[in-house]
Amino acid sequence: MTNGYSKKDVEEGNVLAPSFDCAGLIPAIVTDVLSGAVLMLAWMNADALRKSIETGEAWFWSRSRQCLWHKGATSGQVQQIQEIRIDCDQDAVWLKVRMPAESGCCHTGRASCFYRLISNEPGGPVLQAEYKNSHSK
Amino acid sequence: MTNGYSKKDVEEGNVLAPSFDCAGLIPAIVTDVLSGAVLMLAWMNADALRKSIETGEAWFWSRSRQCLWHKGATSGQVQQIQEIRIDCDQDAVWLKVRMPAESGCCHTGRASCFYRLISNEPGGPVLQAEYKNSHSK
Repeated sequence: MTNGYSKKDVEEGNVLAPSFDCAGLIPAIVTDVLSGAVLMLAWMNADALRKSIETGEAWFWSRSRQCLWHKGATSGQVQQIQEIRIDCDQDAVWLKVRMPAESGCCHTGRASCFYRLISNEPGGPVLQAEYKNSHSK
Repeated sequence: MTNGYSKKDVEEGNVLAPSFDCAGLIPAIVTDVLSGAVLMLAWMNADALRKSIETGEAWFWSRSRQCLWHKGATSGQVQQIQEIRIDCDQDAVWLKVRMPAESGCCHTGRASCFYRLISNEPGGPVLQAEYKNSHSK
């Protein structure tokens, strides 16, 4: 049961019944609609989800600043949402977004936050930067 | 600071220093390496992440069953990891996986767990199933 809905309602129905965690948040996967790359994983509270749906621009909840966050509002790198999907048990969402040309999603300036690979080396896992594939599938 | 590492080490270094949440978990985005589609969002504890890195097969932590979960071990739909990435602040991972042909990732039998769109209708948001795009970017 999620918000009083049955498992069947949640998984097969057409009612939006998001399951927020104990902090009132749901994880949001953000991908680039053109390249398919995962740009970031962010978090939404109910208000951020509602604003994202209603405005077509990505709103999140900043866990570090503890406030609503209109991504790109100050930098100009607003994410235009092409579609929002929700998963089977309604505890994760997936946003496909369009970014302004030449802009980076990550606060480090890179296109994607996922700019490092985990490489399994004999001495243990290490990270490798691989910029050229930051826009690959 | 994450596990004693500086912000610069975490964001720019080559040391794997994952930041697990208060439950000891990190979210793992899983995409299909062939289609680019997001298949699921799952969770890993330190042991699941280690096993995934070492074996090249996806291991997660089942929050409902509270146990390690070798995805597909019983169904045969094991996810072969092509690469694992970690994000800037090392609190999310992205797995690109190969699924066995004709197999579904979701427990409902669908290819992806994200089989429904959130549609903003005049009466409020509703969910729409859209199977044909389940493998789109």
